[in-house]
Amino acid sequence: MKVVIIGSGAGGLTVASHIRKFSKKAEIIVVTLENQVAYSQCAIPYVIGGEIESFEEIVMHTPEYYGERGIKIITDSEVFEVVSSENYVRYRPKDTQTSIKNGFNEILSYDYLVIATGGSPFIPPVEGTNLNGVFKVRTIEDGEKIKSWAEKSKKAVVVGAGAIGLELGYGLKQLSIDVTVTEMLSQILPRSLDPDMAIKVQAYLESVGVNIILERALDNISGDEKAETVVVGNKRVDADLVILSTGIRPSVELAKQAGCAIGSMGVTVNERMETSVTNIYAVGDCVEVYDGITGQKTVSPFGTTAVRQGKVAAKNIIGRNAIFRPVFNSVVSKIGELEIGAVGLTEISANLNGIEVIIGRSRALTKARYYPGCKPIDIKLVCNPRGKILGCQIIAKETVAERVDTMALAIAKGVKCDEITEMEFSYAPPVSMVVDPIVLAAEDALDKINS
Amino acid sequence: MKVVIIGSGAGGLTVASHIRKFSKKAEIIVVTLENQVAYSQCAIPYVIGGEIESFEEIVMHTPEYYGERGIKIITDSEVFEVVSSENYVRYRPKDTQTSIKNGFNEILSYDYLVIATGGSPFIPPVEGTNLNGVFKVRTIEDGEKIKSWAEKSKKAVVVGAGAIGLELGYGLKQLSIDVTVTEMLSQILPRSLDPDMAIKVQAYLESVGVNIILERALDNISGDEKAETVVVGNKRVDADLVILSTGIRPSVELAKQAGCAIGSMGVTVNERMETSVTNIYAVGDCVEVYDGITGQKTVSPFGTTAVRQGKVAAKNIIGRNAIFRPVFNSVVSKIGELEIGAVGLTEISANLNGIEVIIGRSRALTKARYYPGCKPIDIKLVCNPRGKILGCQIIAKETVAERVDTMALAIAKGVKCDEITEMEFSYAPPVSMVVDPIVLAAEDALDKINS
Repeated sequence: MKVVIIGSGAGGLTVASHIRKFSKKAEIIVVTLENQVAYSQCAIPYVIGGEIESFEEIVMHTPEYYGERGIKIITDSEVFEVVSSENYVRYRPKDTQTSIKNGFNEILSYDYLVIATGGSPFIPPVEGTNLNGVFKVRTIEDGEKIKSWAEKSKKAVVVGAGAIGLELGYGLKQLSIDVTVTEMLSQILPRSLDPDMAIKVQAYLESVGVNIILERALDNISGDEKAETVVVGNKRVDADLVILSTGIRPSVELAKQAGCAIGSMGVTVNERMETSVTNIYAVGDCVEVYDGITGQKTVSPFGTTAVRQGKVAAKNIIGRNAIFRPVFNSVVSKIGELEIGAVGLTEISANLNGIEVIIGRSRALTKARYYPGCKPIDIKLVCNPRGKILGCQIIAKETVAERVDTMALAIAKGVKCDEITEMEFSYAPPVSMVVDPIVLAAEDALDKINS
Repeated sequence: MKVVIIGSGAGGLTVASHIRKFSKKAEIIVVTLENQVAYSQCAIPYVIGGEIESFEEIVMHTPEYYGERGIKIITDSEVFEVVSSENYVRYRPKDTQTSIKNGFNEILSYDYLVIATGGSPFIPPVEGTNLNGVFKVRTIEDGEKIKSWAEKSKKAVVVGAGAIGLELGYGLKQLSIDVTVTEMLSQILPRSLDPDMAIKVQAYLESVGVNIILERALDNISGDEKAETVVVGNKRVDADLVILSTGIRPSVELAKQAGCAIGSMGVTVNERMETSVTNIYAVGDCVEVYDGITGQKTVSPFGTTAVRQGKVAAKNIIGRNAIFRPVFNSVVSKIGELEIGAVGLTEISANLNGIEVIIGRSRALTKARYYPGCKPIDIKLVCNPRGKILGCQIIAKETVAERVDTMALAIAKGVKCDEITEMEFSYAPPVSMVVDPIVLAAEDALDKINS
């Protein structure tokens, strides 16, 4: 069996390593545009901010590591054609000028093809995005360029107040750069949080000196060769460093060329991660998935999703059965001291989708109130009118990710608030409250339901 | 409606405050042997060790606080008779010599009686337990006595290597006392952990200078008026401070006198927390419960259990319906830097009960491996042969409690390992691994099941 994988992100490499886990014989070849593989994109803001010492730290494995395990990685190369009718792809060095001139045109046949082309940063179609000092943030190369430029930067603007934008904003501030994060919507973290929770994160960011500008879209960036001024909603902000953190668009071109069906949000796959073309799978940021609550098509551009999809694709390719379920898009971010997590439906998203919801809230502590170092925790539960939990948002300075995970399982299993109040939460004063903050939020929701 | 509650621990006071939450009119009277109410028993070791500054800190509320909310608390008093046929109790001051002499004999009638008499420390029936310098550890008064005595102590023995015993052992060591913890079984934490996990905790304790002696039961304590030597399994250990942390026996005498059925493990209650006698409920350490895995009778002597039972009793008393489910005995302890958590069935308990199990293990990290401050985490999953999770043990220096809670929910919902591998865990490098350690343990179990 010969498997060709296009892309070396979390999705592509998970497919490779999991096919190898189950099959010692399979021939596995990964073709990637990148020079470095197996690094953590999510860690880039933390290297820029200096919390992680260097970009070398976030590279997990080299191509040689995979080579030793019988996974051939062809770096700096582009698959430019999939001939699905004859089960082969054509690739060439990324430097197309050279490769075309040299007539370079390598062919790789496959039994199974996995498209893991990921996504590319959305660049707003305005003037000035090509100026020096304007960066996107996707690859480790992007990160290195930003970090190098930031060394001589005094004022930065980050366009886009999603998790990556805010993590970057905080990170740049730690380098003593004056930072403004701009967002075209009326709140930060619009995909994950409701406005009432987002405002708490905004207050924290402002308290540590990060400026936030809301409800202003990027008009243009101007400057003489290099960026000098950013205009958002007619407001001018000086900046010698501009980062566009304005979202990721799935890279579907190759899948489309291969004849795969493409949906409104990305490459169409079934729950086995198969595309519409026989023997072609797709995983990661390039595919569209289904929302576990609304049933609608959505994206899930997270490393964890790519890993889970990669495992499903690998198992199906080697003849085991596995399915990928609709997502609740569990997310967590650490911005300075603050951890922000969310999973499932937000209240605003419920309203947009005409879903009636009841809200449960708690403001409690991460440990017993008398235990030194206990920290405030804010929880918001979004439930249906019968108390079934549909979503959860949590903000605190510790233990947010793990609590979000508990609620992700609760949502996946259709757990209701009354079950949460009956549930066993472990307790010891140095690590928890005798009544868990999630129970308090569930009781709050139940009080509203029963009143 | 008049409710009399006997006992002011977590169970009794939860009944009181929750009846008040739902009913402004109910007359609520709590009779307690204690002078201080609403304090955290679980926090006593941390005050002794100095992590919490004083015993005042761990007192949540005064009797006056409850008085202001229409809950009358009669302190320092003993209910000595329940006349259930006529719905009243008799009580007297704790100082029975005085009260009997004075003919003190107060009567309290009730519509509902709640027995929340808790448990009392088991004192091994050997010589010397009445010497000066020998303490049990249950009430805040016990804690104060130990802390005071420890000030002039040089060598301490803690008998019993359960969570409280180990927390105390660690705490005394912080006071520069030479500490030995003895255990009659062949491992520490025998109720919560398997030997292979317990050994990791033992290694940590020994690394910080706490001596552990296993497989030796207490023979006697000797000394001239005050403790000087402890003999365990014929081995002599010098000690000027001895703490008996040898378990809690449910205090069932009053319930028995009232005519309530008593089981092998405590007061018999149904899932509504009703005893066998009409209008008498029982909650907390004095009752027996059912194990959610084995179905056997067991105890659940935890503050969280008492709180959950108290809420159930309160709801049923005021005419709402609530039930208390079988327990998985979710526990967590913090010993020094180490957090130790467990829920559900252990492998040794499975073996004892003739339950066939598959084990899944992982040793991973609490954060991305390149993120500063990431810590090792050890997980052991106990599953049935079809992969259903029956138990989980976790040791790490952070985020153990919350992960145990996730697994408690998984066990309660009958989740299988393959569902865990499909589950969404939130990810960001500063707070988690891209593949959660629990997923790795579930995959390990699945590999064994599928091989």
